[in-house]
Amino acid sequence: MFLDKITMFEEKLTLLKKLAKLVRYYILISTTTAGSGHPTSCLSATDLLVALMFGGYFRADLDNPKNPNNDRLIFSKGHAAPLLYSLYAAAGKLTEEEIKTLRKINSPLEGHPTPNFPYSEAATGSLGQGLGIGVGLALHAKLANLSYKTYVLLGDGEMAEGSVWEAMQIASHYKLNNLVGILDVNGYGLVGPTMLHQDLQAYATRIEAFGWEAITVDGHDLEQICEVFDSIQNFSDRPVMIVAKTEKGAGINLPEIANVHGKSLTTEQLQKALENLGEIDTTILGQVKPPENIQLSNTSQNLSTVKITPKTYSLNELVATREAYGQGLAELASENPDVIALDADLSTSTFAYRIKEVDPNRFLEMFIAEQNMVSVATGLALRGRIPFCSSFGAFLTRALDQIRMARYSQANVKFVGSHAGVSIGEDGFSQMGLEDISMFRCILDSVVLYPSDAVSTKALVKEMAKHVGITYLRTSRPKVPVIYSSDESFVIGGSKTLRSSAKDEVTIIAAGVTVHEALKAYAILLQEGIVVRIIDLYSIKPIDGPTLIQAAQETKALLVVEDHYREGGIYGAVSEFLCNSREFSVKPIPIYSLAVNKLPRSGSSEELLAFVEIDAQAIVKKVKQIIYYL
Amino acid sequence: MFLDKITMFEEKLTLLKKLAKLVRYYILISTTTAGSGHPTSCLSATDLLVALMFGGYFRADLDNPKNPNNDRLIFSKGHAAPLLYSLYAAAGKLTEEEIKTLRKINSPLEGHPTPNFPYSEAATGSLGQGLGIGVGLALHAKLANLSYKTYVLLGDGEMAEGSVWEAMQIASHYKLNNLVGILDVNGYGLVGPTMLHQDLQAYATRIEAFGWEAITVDGHDLEQICEVFDSIQNFSDRPVMIVAKTEKGAGINLPEIANVHGKSLTTEQLQKALENLGEIDTTILGQVKPPENIQLSNTSQNLSTVKITPKTYSLNELVATREAYGQGLAELASENPDVIALDADLSTSTFAYRIKEVDPNRFLEMFIAEQNMVSVATGLALRGRIPFCSSFGAFLTRALDQIRMARYSQANVKFVGSHAGVSIGEDGFSQMGLEDISMFRCILDSVVLYPSDAVSTKALVKEMAKHVGITYLRTSRPKVPVIYSSDESFVIGGSKTLRSSAKDEVTIIAAGVTVHEALKAYAILLQEGIVVRIIDLYSIKPIDGPTLIQAAQETKALLVVEDHYREGGIYGAVSEFLCNSREFSVKPIPIYSLAVNKLPRSGSSEELLAFVEIDAQAIVKKVKQIIYYL
Repeated sequence: MFLDKITMFEEKLTLLKKLAKLVRYYILISTTTAGSGHPTSCLSATDLLVALMFGGYFRADLDNPKNPNNDRLIFSKGHAAPLLYSLYAAAGKLTEEEIKTLRKINSPLEGHPTPNFPYSEAATGSLGQGLGIGVGLALHAKLANLSYKTYVLLGDGEMAEGSVWEAMQIASHYKLNNLVGILDVNGYGLVGPTMLHQDLQAYATRIEAFGWEAITVDGHDLEQICEVFDSIQNFSDRPVMIVAKTEKGAGINLPEIANVHGKSLTTEQLQKALENLGEIDTTILGQVKPPENIQLSNTSQNLSTVKITPKTYSLNELVATREAYGQGLAELASENPDVIALDADLSTSTFAYRIKEVDPNRFLEMFIAEQNMVSVATGLALRGRIPFCSSFGAFLTRALDQIRMARYSQANVKFVGSHAGVSIGEDGFSQMGLEDISMFRCILDSVVLYPSDAVSTKALVKEMAKHVGITYLRTSRPKVPVIYSSDESFVIGGSKTLRSSAKDEVTIIAAGVTVHEALKAYAILLQEGIVVRIIDLYSIKPIDGPTLIQAAQETKALLVVEDHYREGGIYGAVSEFLCNSREFSVKPIPIYSLAVNKLPRSGSSEELLAFVEIDAQAIVKKVKQIIYYL
Repeated sequence: MFLDKITMFEEKLTLLKKLAKLVRYYILISTTTAGSGHPTSCLSATDLLVALMFGGYFRADLDNPKNPNNDRLIFSKGHAAPLLYSLYAAAGKLTEEEIKTLRKINSPLEGHPTPNFPYSEAATGSLGQGLGIGVGLALHAKLANLSYKTYVLLGDGEMAEGSVWEAMQIASHYKLNNLVGILDVNGYGLVGPTMLHQDLQAYATRIEAFGWEAITVDGHDLEQICEVFDSIQNFSDRPVMIVAKTEKGAGINLPEIANVHGKSLTTEQLQKALENLGEIDTTILGQVKPPENIQLSNTSQNLSTVKITPKTYSLNELVATREAYGQGLAELASENPDVIALDADLSTSTFAYRIKEVDPNRFLEMFIAEQNMVSVATGLALRGRIPFCSSFGAFLTRALDQIRMARYSQANVKFVGSHAGVSIGEDGFSQMGLEDISMFRCILDSVVLYPSDAVSTKALVKEMAKHVGITYLRTSRPKVPVIYSSDESFVIGGSKTLRSSAKDEVTIIAAGVTVHEALKAYAILLQEGIVVRIIDLYSIKPIDGPTLIQAAQETKALLVVEDHYREGGIYGAVSEFLCNSREFSVKPIPIYSLAVNKLPRSGSSEELLAFVEIDAQAIVKKVKQIIYYL
């Protein structure tokens, strides 16, 4: 029996060595055929990944990448994508011809992993984000009582990204013993040695200080690697990081390319590398262990969901939109078990904490680490959850790179930015979201919503959940009167025309807090005999084109008023839309802007709206100017 | 002598205790008068800061906050601003009346520190950024041979921000023994306990793992605190973090407000607090030790500067704009000793490494940590340097929050984003900057430049250095022909009309790579008898209004072609400007857009320009459509 085990282990090692050669072969031919790529960064991680995939550790049904019981594998060092593809080629899921399409225009085998390749769990390539996504995947397993494990391949260079340490601390805080990091310490970045080069102990010390178990290993010794994977099969109480000393360009004995970053081998180098690699057995097939077959219970059964009675608001009741967001989130969560909320130590200000009334397990405190919050949400979304991430609108700017990558992962993440604009008041510019509309508009296919009262906020929270894709809701700090009756309906791409007559001279387009200023301005102007149209443009992207065109045809000028910098904001959205529309080009009219175009400061909300000239008085003044010049 | 020392120390402690009371008094009255603010977060750090400032450790000439020998103090936990102001009140630099203007509209005492208060080193308030700024200040001292120290007050909540750990690792990497962190572990964030609550040892372990010295202390025991400051007066070889156990709301014995975040005391609570605080001596004055008087040598004398011969380019020579950036940077650095470059492990791709030819000490490798790179640059800029921060345009999105805060610090930081757009080619969307123009345009008063060839790039690098303020230069990966002669001049706010005649039907507005596509389209269209105007809009912000208006008056339509998402990009800039301009409103014409409006992927640069329809063929097709509909 003991001897049998030894023999089996030796046979396994022999097979793994052959598979590692085969995988190296695919890496080399695919990158040289492409004429670009990162072969050396793939070669350093090859033995680690071959052992994981084909050593009986990674468990997945390769015929069904969507199987909820599959182990998950994230290539955080996305530039090792050819290794990912080569593993699946060795597993028989890609032919040699297919792998040679690497980086070509119609191939699913892109330069960095994307959802076009069904086995890439997420889009990566912007470094330091994979571990956070892995935390999301591992959290989902915990919440859904699934036994799959999440593996994340990390490069040593990306350990310099703070977002990695955000993910590290959250993983240990949530005791994610189903999360395994594989750190490929090849010692070199693009330009030269990494900060810690190959000081494995320095990495291990940092990793353990952050509450993980760190295991160091020779990343090219398949026997040692298998022993490590064997040793971590029994769950401990914490995540594990395998810290592997590797060589950039290992296995092909080609000193001229060792440690060179991001260059494919020339045909001559390839030939030499293949000679050094020795005979390749292309007939062998890497076998992946099948997953456990845990029946996925309906998520709602796993959750103790309290029903929240839908709240109705009375007209003129003073409610902050952020408060209505909390109410909407709680109502939504009580109807939809997939809804989950994440916040970065601001949940009592953003009102995200309200979801705890429905189910405390569906609130994930991410502490003050916005980047990781977005990556975790991405991981959760990739497993079918509908995560709502909230913070101040100002602080979501911290995570633009992660938001961009969430879009590329096709992750259905919802964002809520509160305390937006100068209307936050005394806290000053550091807390004012004045770039958030611009930032979210620039995400491909995104939805950007900015409601003005409690009724529209609550309705739009529910619309957000129905829509699949990156969606942003902007909320405000001050209490404002309810202007809609509770049965009013709101849709993505819609708007509300609040004041309208055949005599309208100018159309005022507002959203959020400026809707209330516009309504005040309307009353003042009316007393002076000036009639204006008021549009509540609560959906900034997509934008309500027909209503804007109609206003442009029926009134003589448009005035956009927003609590945001001018560039790329609501005025930007309106002018971009109209300038590019046929109807407007036939009969164009001037479009004016009132926006935050000077440095804001501390002061009361009202003082600041006046200071940056977006309050009712400023609107009145501007409308009169516009009419004077018409 | 020994007894004298003891007596002196006891006298010092007695005075410090009185000053701590006085500072607490100012904190309490200022926040209650303001009706908002974070008194408890100030009170926890009061004893630490009183000891630092008035215990003979902090050295500064308070009559000259700009003295280059002054020690620097950053409040990374910016919400403790009332403590900052109260320290200067205790030092006699603010009266009681003045401190009561806290958070009022015209007061320099804003909710979070801003440059309006001359003793606040930088704008803070977005957590986790102060230490990186401190690293920049400390690096400047090293580079300029100055002996000042940099102190950074950190909150425990913000230790969750990855950017803090980015700063930690760089500080130890660069052996910044002139940097002292003071970590105020009061154990509570906004919502509840911080992740590590008051586990001082856990903090110390992490801090030491990152190469710092960690010293734990009772943050309310002035004697202990002074002993710690005494012990760190002799430089070691590493930065020091004082990890202090504190109480949120310490010193006023008011359990109902302890650990409450961001709420000022009611008048009743204030009265009780003041009673508990006991007698206040408002006649005492905190004395700050004067700085050393090191003559600041001209920075150029400290630097071994090699003169770089200005390079001229021949027409049609193939040069990537990123390559010309490196040349321009090297030339600039050889002329201006304040110029310094930072890059995040991409300097051989962004060509920032070229500055090393001038002086290797003026290149700072920031490794793969873009957020900290920007904060360090902010610190350097605040001490008079002109830092150029480069990375791929895509990865600068990582640091939007830091860029925003750099603007609020009035830091003169230059940004260079390379490999922008789909023209990067095979690497795929994760590496494509498609949001960078929008992002930088939305920074107040920013400058956004996007040159199309080597000559204009090099010229604009020099213009960037002349301009004071946040400036962004976008460069591209592919080699493109030089289109300007080397003596051509380029200015911020300018453009070049490359093709123009009295018969122009449509104006094509392009920048960067699309200028070359537009020129190709021009030739094709001309053969078919269609004459178009071509504008190289190399300055996107500020924009060349007169040229755009002239084009709108002389041609029948505008077509903006850009390698960027449409929202907030060049088309956005053009339509925002024109829609808001009087001349255009008198005779408006349609403005059309060709931009990246679908999901890009891997492929060659040429294939991708065609795929997203911004290449010459797409321009030709669009111009014909426009003319057909005119």
